[in-house]
Amino acid sequence: MTAAFDKIRQILRRLPGLGSRSAERIALHLLVEHPERCAELIEALRDASMRISRCGVCGNICERVEGAEDLICGICADSSRARNTVCVVEQVPDLLAMEKSGAYRGVYHVLHGKLSPVQGIGPEQLNMSALRHRVEAGGVEELILALSNDIEGEATCHFIREQILAGGAARVSRIGFGLPSGAGIGYADSTTLRSALESRRSV
Amino acid sequence: MTAAFDKIRQILRRLPGLGSRSAERIALHLLVEHPERCAELIEALRDASMRISRCGVCGNICERVEGAEDLICGICADSSRARNTVCVVEQVPDLLAMEKSGAYRGVYHVLHGKLSPVQGIGPEQLNMSALRHRVEAGGVEELILALSNDIEGEATCHFIREQILAGGAARVSRIGFGLPSGAGIGYADSTTLRSALESRRSV
Repeated sequence: MTAAFDKIRQILRRLPGLGSRSAERIALHLLVEHPERCAELIEALRDASMRISRCGVCGNICERVEGAEDLICGICADSSRARNTVCVVEQVPDLLAMEKSGAYRGVYHVLHGKLSPVQGIGPEQLNMSALRHRVEAGGVEELILALSNDIEGEATCHFIREQILAGGAARVSRIGFGLPSGAGIGYADSTTLRSALESRRSV
Repeated sequence: MTAAFDKIRQILRRLPGLGSRSAERIALHLLVEHPERCAELIEALRDASMRISRCGVCGNICERVEGAEDLICGICADSSRARNTVCVVEQVPDLLAMEKSGAYRGVYHVLHGKLSPVQGIGPEQLNMSALRHRVEAGGVEELILALSNDIEGEATCHFIREQILAGGAARVSRIGFGLPSGAGIGYADSTTLRSALESRRSV
């Protein structure tokens, strides 16, 4: 194969969810089978990378508006949202999932990852100092940690409680764990059932 | 979400193997989480789309060489390959799989698809007239049809036999169908077993 093709294949391979076979398939699709789509993709990526950035407040995706100085996302700019409640999520898709549920009317803070010493991800690699600034600036009354139910999620919660909120007066909570909606006991894994038992509530 | 983001998501969605969730994940990865990778991808795509094209003879992927007039792929340019034997495949990955097997030393012809009236793919949408020219120009002694074992593959084989080779003297064969290497009878589906029975050989 050619050098230029190999390079594209390697770059695509690093995108989330793509293996070497799917990266090859996409590269051939763009370069040999539908070259017109390649030009379209280049143009759209260039346009979007100029317009889209992270929200300066919460780290959510945010489109630059002509003439505006600050980069503020739609949620942070929405005056109807409760600004004293901040929901901390790992990634933008998590925020989108929360929004889709319609169950939350506060604002967010996107960490863009979770602490993972194994993968070399410390607090500096995450959007953590901005969270500290928000808490220290005051006005945050409740912090809801909507982080993964796994070891890294646990470590990230612990870090936020100990390091970020150490001086602040904000209440902190973690979203509930247990049986997902519509799921039967028989299909749930043991860790989920353990979480569900621990989170039991009297009825 | 923003308009520029939605556009990227839609364009990515049309790439082979990507669903709406994976397209969204890749768009966020490139635009919000790792913007430096977006610039790198744009650059590599632009470079590759200028360098890479289809081979003028067979339709395989092919890199433009400085100063060279014709676009000929490595296989067509390789004088050690038997030029009188042409293996017809649907896509470049099929050609790569044949090459990987090391079992074939002739040249190829890539159709870039198969006939599919349902999807509106007729002979004009495929690299079919170039195949006709190759056959009519003479020198092709054997045509090996390495097309899918499905209805569209069958229709494409039929079209090539009836329309493309009608006047030519080339022998034509279709690759064997049956039990894949390493597979047990118990796990094979009925259509494969039917193919395998039809292709039985005395031993």
